[in-house]
Amino acid sequence: MVNSIETRLPTGVKDFLPIKANKLEYLQTRLKEVFDRWGFRLVAPAPLEDLAVLELGLGKDLREKTFRFDDRQSGRLVAFPPDITPQIARIAATRMQGLPLPFRLCYNGSVLRHAEQRLGKDRGIHQAGVELIGLDSPEADAEMIVMAIEGLQAVGADDFTIDIGQVEFLRGILDGLALPGPQAQAVRTAIAGKDLSSLQKLMETLPVTDRQKEELLALPRLFGGMETLERAAAAVSNDNSRRALDNLQQVLATLESYGVSEHITLDLGELRGFDYHTGVIFQGFLSGFGHAVCAGGRYDGLTARYGFPAPATGLTFSLLNLLFALDKVLDDRVTFGSDILLFSEGIEMTPAHRLATALRTQGLSVARDINSQDRQEGLAYARRMHFRNLLIIHQDATELTLINTADGRETSLDMQAALAGELRL
Amino acid sequence: MVNSIETRLPTGVKDFLPIKANKLEYLQTRLKEVFDRWGFRLVAPAPLEDLAVLELGLGKDLREKTFRFDDRQSGRLVAFPPDITPQIARIAATRMQGLPLPFRLCYNGSVLRHAEQRLGKDRGIHQAGVELIGLDSPEADAEMIVMAIEGLQAVGADDFTIDIGQVEFLRGILDGLALPGPQAQAVRTAIAGKDLSSLQKLMETLPVTDRQKEELLALPRLFGGMETLERAAAAVSNDNSRRALDNLQQVLATLESYGVSEHITLDLGELRGFDYHTGVIFQGFLSGFGHAVCAGGRYDGLTARYGFPAPATGLTFSLLNLLFALDKVLDDRVTFGSDILLFSEGIEMTPAHRLATALRTQGLSVARDINSQDRQEGLAYARRMHFRNLLIIHQDATELTLINTADGRETSLDMQAALAGELRL
Repeated sequence: MVNSIETRLPTGVKDFLPIKANKLEYLQTRLKEVFDRWGFRLVAPAPLEDLAVLELGLGKDLREKTFRFDDRQSGRLVAFPPDITPQIARIAATRMQGLPLPFRLCYNGSVLRHAEQRLGKDRGIHQAGVELIGLDSPEADAEMIVMAIEGLQAVGADDFTIDIGQVEFLRGILDGLALPGPQAQAVRTAIAGKDLSSLQKLMETLPVTDRQKEELLALPRLFGGMETLERAAAAVSNDNSRRALDNLQQVLATLESYGVSEHITLDLGELRGFDYHTGVIFQGFLSGFGHAVCAGGRYDGLTARYGFPAPATGLTFSLLNLLFALDKVLDDRVTFGSDILLFSEGIEMTPAHRLATALRTQGLSVARDINSQDRQEGLAYARRMHFRNLLIIHQDATELTLINTADGRETSLDMQAALAGELRL
Repeated sequence: MVNSIETRLPTGVKDFLPIKANKLEYLQTRLKEVFDRWGFRLVAPAPLEDLAVLELGLGKDLREKTFRFDDRQSGRLVAFPPDITPQIARIAATRMQGLPLPFRLCYNGSVLRHAEQRLGKDRGIHQAGVELIGLDSPEADAEMIVMAIEGLQAVGADDFTIDIGQVEFLRGILDGLALPGPQAQAVRTAIAGKDLSSLQKLMETLPVTDRQKEELLALPRLFGGMETLERAAAAVSNDNSRRALDNLQQVLATLESYGVSEHITLDLGELRGFDYHTGVIFQGFLSGFGHAVCAGGRYDGLTARYGFPAPATGLTFSLLNLLFALDKVLDDRVTFGSDILLFSEGIEMTPAHRLATALRTQGLSVARDINSQDRQEGLAYARRMHFRNLLIIHQDATELTLINTADGRETSLDMQAALAGELRL
């Protein structure tokens, strides 16, 4: 006997039992359909990477979260990818030479990340997403955002926003300050927390001009609807930030052309992925759920780290967050269980096998009840294990009774009719 | 710039680029449909396991092949599963209490195994399979074999055999000998290699009766068609082997009832999984391909290691072997690429976005050509990147030209007709 302590899983990873696994599969299937409809092609990156190669494409944060170990066969350090995007960048850079850009690639997989155990965070993360490599056009950025919206709609979300930023806007302001590391970090923390009073206190100690001070203090308030763009334009004077706003404006115009502006909000103080992204970034939020269910943005420097400079943007869905946030919605959308449990009163197996095979060929899902002693036992099993019907073959193998497990309704029919496809559920 | 040495993957794992990834997805989808039709429910086991827990369910061979490391967060040894079956056994034993048996569960995932580098073996292994837990009936064994046949047919295999053995038959003979370890091992090796002359030499040195000698020497020849069963019955006299043959006979009768006997061959000297299996075992082979593409069998002792004794049998498909063996077949079965690359001659984006959205809603796969300078460039890209058509929106946004990339055929139609669903590819 094994006690429950000994059968526990490592923290931060979980099993998905049938109902949840079914919902997860639904999310993956619906999102993959969206990726297909937009012309993206599936790639399946290797499950292990050489650590040194993988780290070329990882920021400091993800490097620290990477599962790594000595490969006893090669003596080299190998790693489990903490993110799929750097793997796609490696593949695009090193394995698709000679093909014309752009590349539209998609993936569906899981990654591992070390996470703070005390926060109860997931270490096993399921991602499905796309990468659009080779285009620097604002239309490419918009494509990611429209796909995010279509993806969320495809899995049953209706009340959501896509929150858009542009990291070069912030970078334009901060670069102008040329602050030393610790002070730059303090400023970023205050902006990330939209903490105006800390920012004001910091201003008093920093060697910045009044104009720069105004730009900085405007940041924590630069979020909201489309009017945010005008407020942002009024708040900054440096060229880089202005160029960033022009770029953002073009992306927003494209989104309007797609007719999806109703889902858009702006946040120009957003710092997510500041070290990694190089343009428009975004995150998707469902109403009433605090974690992003999808995220993406431009990363023009990543494929260059693998020897192939190309502009790029991407989008990834967080399947565990979607699964959690949409649990009730998915209850209605995802059918669970099977059509028929087939119980035979006779001892002769052949009629049951013939009928089961015929029904499966007709497209029904059918399991054989191999061990129940009588129909009552079969019915109890069928109900408990999510079979929608119990189908009984009577002794003579010519008459059948179909029992709907939800309402108990019984229908009689004959074997020949069922074999001929006349069974109606 | 990064050189190719530095971007290589660890040995034994690989990336799947779009065409291969598409075929892999096809195999997974078709097999999952078979599992669904037979009433099996998906589970997705955790990506990491506590090593001590996982090892409860692993034989010596797989223990040695397990990727393991210190979990820096818990200080415990954790592992990446080398096989999914022990995970399903753990889940059935510890997480499905209170549900009535049998459990019909299926999975689709990848595992990691250390493998001999010099043999060029895969370390990343893709498995899709089922476990039927809670039934000791021969009909359950037959269910696995019929599903193996249906699965192979579903992915396009036509010329294949399922080679069936019964490990208790062999165990009955060997147990009677009560040989010490090294000699027992030598006998097994000779049987596994169907090496009659080594077996004869061994016999001369072993303390066995003439009757036992006859049983042993018969083993390397006990393979072939159904007549093998009679030869086997004539060759053995011990009770355990006879019971094993009775059990095998019942499974074969059920397969006959299912009408699939034409695919069956027998091998009673098969030693695969000898330490692990407890009854009927089988492997599937495609004609002309030496590696098994599926395998399975009875393992009645596994869930007990997790505190829940239950008979069980299972089936797993080796997706990489199927992918390799069926490569040409899959070329014909799996469509690759997208329906339309949409190129707009005008600078106004809205008509292109409206049309792309409409066509996607109609079920077509459509990518926007965001960067081509002219239709020639668009057509070249479309051909190279597997788009079946280039659709051109002319300057005025009322006329369209559809070019079939395979034969160059051009069709004109108007925008309104295409928006209304009248585009025929």
